[in-house]
Amino acid sequence: MNFIIGYHTTQFGELWEKSLFDLVEEAINGVLKQTSLSSRQIDAVFFGNMLAGVLENNLHSPSKVSEILKVNIPIFRAEAACASGGAAFNLAKTYLDSNSNKNVLVVGAEKMTDYSPEETITGLSAASSGEEQEAGLTFPGLYAMMANFYLEKYHFTEENLAYVSVKNHYHGSLNDKAHFRKKISVEDVLKSPYVAYPLKVLDSSPISDGASALILTNRHDLIKKQRNLVSVLASEVATDTISLKERKKFDEILATKIAGDAAFKKAKINRRDIKVAEVHDCFSIAEILAMEDLGFWEKGEGGNRIKELLTMCENGGNLIVNTSGGLKAAGHPVGATGIKQIGEIFLQLTGQAEKRQVNNVRYGLAHNVGGSGGTAVVTILSI
Amino acid sequence: MNFIIGYHTTQFGELWEKSLFDLVEEAINGVLKQTSLSSRQIDAVFFGNMLAGVLENNLHSPSKVSEILKVNIPIFRAEAACASGGAAFNLAKTYLDSNSNKNVLVVGAEKMTDYSPEETITGLSAASSGEEQEAGLTFPGLYAMMANFYLEKYHFTEENLAYVSVKNHYHGSLNDKAHFRKKISVEDVLKSPYVAYPLKVLDSSPISDGASALILTNRHDLIKKQRNLVSVLASEVATDTISLKERKKFDEILATKIAGDAAFKKAKINRRDIKVAEVHDCFSIAEILAMEDLGFWEKGEGGNRIKELLTMCENGGNLIVNTSGGLKAAGHPVGATGIKQIGEIFLQLTGQAEKRQVNNVRYGLAHNVGGSGGTAVVTILSI
Repeated sequence: MNFIIGYHTTQFGELWEKSLFDLVEEAINGVLKQTSLSSRQIDAVFFGNMLAGVLENNLHSPSKVSEILKVNIPIFRAEAACASGGAAFNLAKTYLDSNSNKNVLVVGAEKMTDYSPEETITGLSAASSGEEQEAGLTFPGLYAMMANFYLEKYHFTEENLAYVSVKNHYHGSLNDKAHFRKKISVEDVLKSPYVAYPLKVLDSSPISDGASALILTNRHDLIKKQRNLVSVLASEVATDTISLKERKKFDEILATKIAGDAAFKKAKINRRDIKVAEVHDCFSIAEILAMEDLGFWEKGEGGNRIKELLTMCENGGNLIVNTSGGLKAAGHPVGATGIKQIGEIFLQLTGQAEKRQVNNVRYGLAHNVGGSGGTAVVTILSI
Repeated sequence: MNFIIGYHTTQFGELWEKSLFDLVEEAINGVLKQTSLSSRQIDAVFFGNMLAGVLENNLHSPSKVSEILKVNIPIFRAEAACASGGAAFNLAKTYLDSNSNKNVLVVGAEKMTDYSPEETITGLSAASSGEEQEAGLTFPGLYAMMANFYLEKYHFTEENLAYVSVKNHYHGSLNDKAHFRKKISVEDVLKSPYVAYPLKVLDSSPISDGASALILTNRHDLIKKQRNLVSVLASEVATDTISLKERKKFDEILATKIAGDAAFKKAKINRRDIKVAEVHDCFSIAEILAMEDLGFWEKGEGGNRIKELLTMCENGGNLIVNTSGGLKAAGHPVGATGIKQIGEIFLQLTGQAEKRQVNNVRYGLAHNVGGSGGTAVVTILSI
């Protein structure tokens, strides 16, 4: 069995004074300090990053991480668009499954605000197909198509979507590390300008800088000593076509369904056992699809369920979602996101989630998506 | 134990009529056909690619591979500069070590010739540190510094280096898939124009397109049925600083030493058991350093040893090196290189290396380097 024994994240936001590898170093130092480990006690590193090549001509990050840590261990970069962090975590778990008595560092980071919005958006569109790029379809455009399809098919309106952002901004207001810590109302969302109809600015996650790091271990001596110990019951990856037009359905993310079903099967628990989840809300519609595709809600009922706001932490529903603020309010430094999601569940399970702590949590789930659903990673954790 | 049961590579060269994913598809279809497997029988894919993001704004390749294969399985992209292929193979082996009864596809590819040389060279320099990029140090420049240091310290000349290229071009002349199939002389090398003193055009591997694919398995039913069965005794990864100036020594690649030592320890064989090796000869000096750092030659004797040409297949030495033609003559489509190296050893071990077949081969080694030595992957195979 593999355990998470520590998590550290930098502030998420517009961090003008910090470079990508400043952030990586800060996250690594934070998690090493927290677990009282030195870099010499790390056996392998998995690094999640999407855009450093495209934005700053910076590839071969395993070697850069070696330079930071001053070690010569195996280090790997995972890239699966916005699921890069989740993919790195999955590879780290696989590494531990095949190597006994090891410590693994998983770190995800992205530096996105040093460039013009056009450059960053062009970089992000690298996660879609060549045809979609040529057609000028950005990610807001792709998710807007899914949102239009969903709203029309199930007879919802933009107001239904808005509740996702209201909830996640409320959670963000409770998280010191969040990019946005301001509560917003349904009216605020509805009044915000359109990005791609029906999605508006306040339906959309921001462009953020940040880095997050976790330590995973299967070392018996460490497991005995640690106060904060969270076991990894499942980490499952599924993929799907990169082009939306190649998909059979537009109101579901098939990769999420497949990875979710596989994760629950592996973890041998039920949906209702999960009390906290971080799901991939790059746009408001994405959280609704995720909740349905993960089997928490029936297909087509998400538009109503979100309006009840029972997934908001002060309302005390059975399942609280995106206590970190989600991508929407905590921010979305792409490579860091999948690690931060798992880290937030770690905080909840170990009673360290401060103002946003959910009570009596035994199981949690993290769900990370790449592109418009071409990759999904679902992780289930327990104390 | 994990086994390689099939290998297919596309032609390496300037393949103007083919896109990156045309090449990927060709390599995948080739290896599936050869092993009589359908895409439905593949449980996971590991894809090595360096430059698609930088050169063609093409990230999230796991999802594109899912689209090609029409499956929803776990697919990962590995990027470690020129060691991307080796890293993908290593991750695939780890996956099999932790999952029984699975088939894994490993594919590496690069499309490099659709761009201006300046664009491609800028992309390649992404594998070096930010400082080196700012200083205008390209990879020929970095390896030239190592070559100058080596030649001066051990009293060799450019002529010594030239024999690497003579040998590898001879081997390339025997390999239908090689980018260059023309024999060259020491004089040809010495007369070729300087790229970065003391390295000349004919000391340098070319910019190539190509894709290579392998199937790894630990399925008992398949292992019994296969005619061509090569076992993976070891695959070891080590890293080092990305900046040359942070290194203690300039006449060795430390990551190669560490990965090589670990691989021989894991494989429980001696250096002299290896009869064929593919080593990373991005520049002539790199092959000499590799032979020394892997422990085949003493440090500082490589300049003399290469002149004996005992590592050339017609001369019948104890160890024949780079029968594929190496990066120099077979070509260097970056993401494919690490897979092609392992594939060449597979061909040698299964008696399929045609005109360049070495006799009585039981063990072989492949050595893949990223950047100027920031990553090294050493793989040992046996029949």
